[in-house]
Amino acid sequence: MTEAFSASGTKPTIRDVATAAGVSKSLVSLVLQGSANVSESRRRAVLEAMEQLGYRPNRLAQRLSGTRSGTIGVMLNDIRNPWFVELLEGLTASLHAAGISPVLADSYTDNRVGRSSVETLLEQRIDGLVVVGTTSESAAIGKAAQSVPVVLAGTREPHLPGVDIVVNDDDAGARQATEHLLSLGHQRIAHLQGPGEVGKLRRLSFEQTMLDAGLEPSVVTGGVSEESAYAAAGRLLAGIKRPTAIFAYNDIACIGALSAADDLGLSVPKDLSLVGYDNTYLAKIRHLSLTSVDNGNLAVGVEAGKFILERLTAPDLPARLHQVPSQLQVRGSSGDAPS
Amino acid sequence: MTEAFSASGTKPTIRDVATAAGVSKSLVSLVLQGSANVSESRRRAVLEAMEQLGYRPNRLAQRLSGTRSGTIGVMLNDIRNPWFVELLEGLTASLHAAGISPVLADSYTDNRVGRSSVETLLEQRIDGLVVVGTTSESAAIGKAAQSVPVVLAGTREPHLPGVDIVVNDDDAGARQATEHLLSLGHQRIAHLQGPGEVGKLRRLSFEQTMLDAGLEPSVVTGGVSEESAYAAAGRLLAGIKRPTAIFAYNDIACIGALSAADDLGLSVPKDLSLVGYDNTYLAKIRHLSLTSVDNGNLAVGVEAGKFILERLTAPDLPARLHQVPSQLQVRGSSGDAPS
Repeated sequence: MTEAFSASGTKPTIRDVATAAGVSKSLVSLVLQGSANVSESRRRAVLEAMEQLGYRPNRLAQRLSGTRSGTIGVMLNDIRNPWFVELLEGLTASLHAAGISPVLADSYTDNRVGRSSVETLLEQRIDGLVVVGTTSESAAIGKAAQSVPVVLAGTREPHLPGVDIVVNDDDAGARQATEHLLSLGHQRIAHLQGPGEVGKLRRLSFEQTMLDAGLEPSVVTGGVSEESAYAAAGRLLAGIKRPTAIFAYNDIACIGALSAADDLGLSVPKDLSLVGYDNTYLAKIRHLSLTSVDNGNLAVGVEAGKFILERLTAPDLPARLHQVPSQLQVRGSSGDAPS
Repeated sequence: MTEAFSASGTKPTIRDVATAAGVSKSLVSLVLQGSANVSESRRRAVLEAMEQLGYRPNRLAQRLSGTRSGTIGVMLNDIRNPWFVELLEGLTASLHAAGISPVLADSYTDNRVGRSSVETLLEQRIDGLVVVGTTSESAAIGKAAQSVPVVLAGTREPHLPGVDIVVNDDDAGARQATEHLLSLGHQRIAHLQGPGEVGKLRRLSFEQTMLDAGLEPSVVTGGVSEESAYAAAGRLLAGIKRPTAIFAYNDIACIGALSAADDLGLSVPKDLSLVGYDNTYLAKIRHLSLTSVDNGNLAVGVEAGKFILERLTAPDLPARLHQVPSQLQVRGSSGDAPS
């Protein structure tokens, strides 16, 4: 897929290719259209001339002739939340190995101006779409799946026939987080629930782990953003029997809870333990040092890339669900329950 | 630019357009190719049928016929550093108002797999390129500027004829940061220098402000990333005459310095004052509360959008430099110099 400008700095044309290959312009067009009426030796001569000149082929012609445009659209759910950084690295590496380029759109930014990221990407005549994270664009994703292969990464919705899902093991991750807090002696633990199927799975796992320990799970919404978590945690911590630990839907929400604790003069982890999810670089900032569930995002991205590449040649594969393991990373934000 | 799928859920074809307009398929092709051999009434009938059916036109045909693809490529310098979030919002808003879609590529991720983001975007046959932030892709940007309009946003390089630059006033911003620390009584102030022209301007302004106050400016590199700042600040703070304040190239570098202070048991701002740049959401996290220079990024994005739109119709405009005002935001990371 690497294409270069010609040495003169101007873009080579079909005419340049024809001259270099010693054939007519219309024969070059036939090759571009994938015509069967071209001898193999002439086809090879044309393709070699294109390579040498760095001719940038007409993507639409490729597509009309049944070949691919070489681009996968990647829709990020919220560019402000760095949860997806390693996922994107893994995905880009997978696609790059196959000579495919990812082009990105950000749902948060696009929605702010009333635009759909899926539509933006479809206008690029992408060969496939990878949806990264839970968004409100379910209807648009459903429509997209009628025309291009779609893979979901880091989100489990919308459920669609022929759409693969690559995620971490949210059930295991939430259980690890909860068991960690239980092992530190916490009994009043609250969960800030996040959106969608992923949010539901983490919440259910938290609840089950608490019930298994004979404890009452406390769940509030507030895991959607830093702001919502700040407000929700503020209410929880100002209450009478305040929790001694909060397990947040993700790191951004965990930071919102940390800010709420700061405002109330509560010390973390002495007065309050915090656990996030995603193991972002935010969790690793020493001044924050959040205990967080590593969601194996690099592997999620690599796998999502493999799945979309497979679907380019085999679009009718049945829908697959691939889960990568999760792993708790313990840092300074969690400690023994106050006595 | 809004294009829709037909009601049946399948994409309308040229044949559908021809039937709806009551013309032949080849006449539709002629309209798509911008041929002069079509009567105005028939051209209008075809365009109206396309509109009604939500026909997604062949971008390359549009381009070949002299119309535009409706896409601007936006190259982000490092998706891990949230400095660009508001810039992207402003840019998207500007473009959206003109019916243009931004497609994104991230230089950091692409470079990790040996790919050039500029090339990735050019393969999309973008109408224009907005470069967001300082990167190492100067050569590729120079090549791109030979084929599409280019605008630089939040970076001042590479200097190219016919390439606009939209930035904040780095000179004023660095002076405000330095004067703020001086007004708090700090005398030993160090600067963590960042990359490129922007880094140089902030450093020069810091040095001049210090010299004007009769003080010795201390400058070290280390403003490129969180890791480099952590290492550089660690060395500075472990030295004999350690600074009482650090002005970092950006917020990410400021966080690196904060981590170094944490490691050495230095309290911020009691033992050490810190000032960042970009006024990102990181600076606003209460547990971090970084004093930071607001770089007016929303306005930078809006203006960059206007400039690239102007260049689509007037590609030969002379290069322009537009600076938006900077404004210091004082938060908890800066305080009186230790006595």
